[in-house]
Amino acid sequence: MPSEFELIRRYFNRSISDRTNLGIGDDCALIQINSGMELALSTDMLVSGTHFFPNADPYQLGHKVLAVNLSDTAAMGVNPHWCTLAIALPQADEKWIAPFAEGFFSLANRFDIDLIGGDTTRGPLNFCVQIMGEVSIGKALRRSGAKVNDDIWVSGELGDAAFMLKHMQGHIVLSNDSIQRCATRLHMPEPRVLLGVNLVNIANSCIDVSDGLLADLGHILERSNKGAEVWLEQIPRSNAYADVDELVARQCLLAGGDDYELCFTASADKRGVLEDLSKQLQLRISRIGRINPMPGLIVKDSQHNIVELPSKGFDHFA
Amino acid sequence: MPSEFELIRRYFNRSISDRTNLGIGDDCALIQINSGMELALSTDMLVSGTHFFPNADPYQLGHKVLAVNLSDTAAMGVNPHWCTLAIALPQADEKWIAPFAEGFFSLANRFDIDLIGGDTTRGPLNFCVQIMGEVSIGKALRRSGAKVNDDIWVSGELGDAAFMLKHMQGHIVLSNDSIQRCATRLHMPEPRVLLGVNLVNIANSCIDVSDGLLADLGHILERSNKGAEVWLEQIPRSNAYADVDELVARQCLLAGGDDYELCFTASADKRGVLEDLSKQLQLRISRIGRINPMPGLIVKDSQHNIVELPSKGFDHFA
Repeated sequence: MPSEFELIRRYFNRSISDRTNLGIGDDCALIQINSGMELALSTDMLVSGTHFFPNADPYQLGHKVLAVNLSDTAAMGVNPHWCTLAIALPQADEKWIAPFAEGFFSLANRFDIDLIGGDTTRGPLNFCVQIMGEVSIGKALRRSGAKVNDDIWVSGELGDAAFMLKHMQGHIVLSNDSIQRCATRLHMPEPRVLLGVNLVNIANSCIDVSDGLLADLGHILERSNKGAEVWLEQIPRSNAYADVDELVARQCLLAGGDDYELCFTASADKRGVLEDLSKQLQLRISRIGRINPMPGLIVKDSQHNIVELPSKGFDHFA
Repeated sequence: MPSEFELIRRYFNRSISDRTNLGIGDDCALIQINSGMELALSTDMLVSGTHFFPNADPYQLGHKVLAVNLSDTAAMGVNPHWCTLAIALPQADEKWIAPFAEGFFSLANRFDIDLIGGDTTRGPLNFCVQIMGEVSIGKALRRSGAKVNDDIWVSGELGDAAFMLKHMQGHIVLSNDSIQRCATRLHMPEPRVLLGVNLVNIANSCIDVSDGLLADLGHILERSNKGAEVWLEQIPRSNAYADVDELVARQCLLAGGDDYELCFTASADKRGVLEDLSKQLQLRISRIGRINPMPGLIVKDSQHNIVELPSKGFDHFA
């Protein structure tokens, strides 16, 4: 007679591809890496009350815990193939687990990702996902590769997730149209997997915008030992910006987290190939600034005036 | 000015070996797998109040969260090389993190394991460790490999961790000598890494005893579609057994969790090589039973009487 716990666990034991030698069910999973490839891996822990509201929709949560990890592999140009999922749950509630698993596997299946291991235990709601994938040896996009005079690019639009959070917290009021758009962006972010994979051999550095544009671009600058100039008016904004005043908008644009767009740098001779790629992927990319030789990050408006910066990012213990 | 959070994070950014292409500090870590090898990986989540007491000693906890994962790779005959560590902490308390990191790295360094990634966030105390290592393709020890007439072996002694737990819960009273021994076994388990690696090409199946001997041997039997006979008097007991009555002793021996010994099966012609290995590793191994063709697990006493079985293991949601 399987326990309730065992029943819950079965939700995560799905069929796996030929790429996996051994999946869930033994002490370890076994995989093989193709010759000429590196294994890339990334881990994220998402905690109730810190990363999502305790009453968050389980389907959306299932999507999001995987999406944020896929965003990390995308930022390195990695092709994702495998993941593990560890969950702590206050109780074994099948009504909650079923839609959670549906959200999780809906995204996993879209990118042919095998769930090959994990853990299920009792505890305050907590998810830990590790994503693993392959990239040609030496070809991964690193934060440290930005070069002087590189263009700075960003995919999609920034700030929507932060807008939605502020709306939910009662700090701003979004229109109904904006709520629909911004809620999807916050709760069901789309990891830029194909963009990331295609940026290998094009971009010199890359990061995903999870903590806010300035904070994340700052990581590239710090690792690359460079500076940058960013043009405020060039940063892509969604229509939701019409709903809020400019100071809030600027805060969300420059320091809003949870967008999961890619910010990357590439030399100017790559503009043509990047525009082609944007069309091919039907994904907007915007050139928002330039890498400078001297450290320091400045934001300029269209009159070339330096814009005062909001606080730079998100620190869980700040 | 680094935040308190950033300071905490630095405790986990240690030097790494040549085996790791890229460690902590980018969106992903990068590793290469040697030709002819598989990557084996295992994930465990440990939660305060479920797997350890909220006031557990941080040095011991640092040891244990890695040890339980190393026990999983050992059970597959895997050589462990890399790990990731995700932590949720109620607050950024350096006085707690420093000894935790010391316990963690003390064990990691002993087995040349690089910490290559992870996450640190605010939340109820929770650890998620993923361990990764290499094993020759097709050589991993699986639960499914037990063969009819295989000897069943177990390393070390069983039950001490369960004794200590019962003592801490006030159900039994151990002598001072036993407390010392059993506390170490519960809080600082020794993963049988070298035994596991050496069992490749010797054992037919293997598992680590984390949920109790009967439950874990049961997994081997289920996966191998076999049965077994276990000889109660042959199961290795420590001196601590003198402190408690036979019914409690039997419960701890057969169903006590947290021992992290290896239970494995091997054909009878391997007895000599196993005895040599035991001497070489200075680790006791005991032959405790035999694999049968028909499903079912029975325990016999020295008079060949069938022993009534205690509840079979540990289910977090039971």
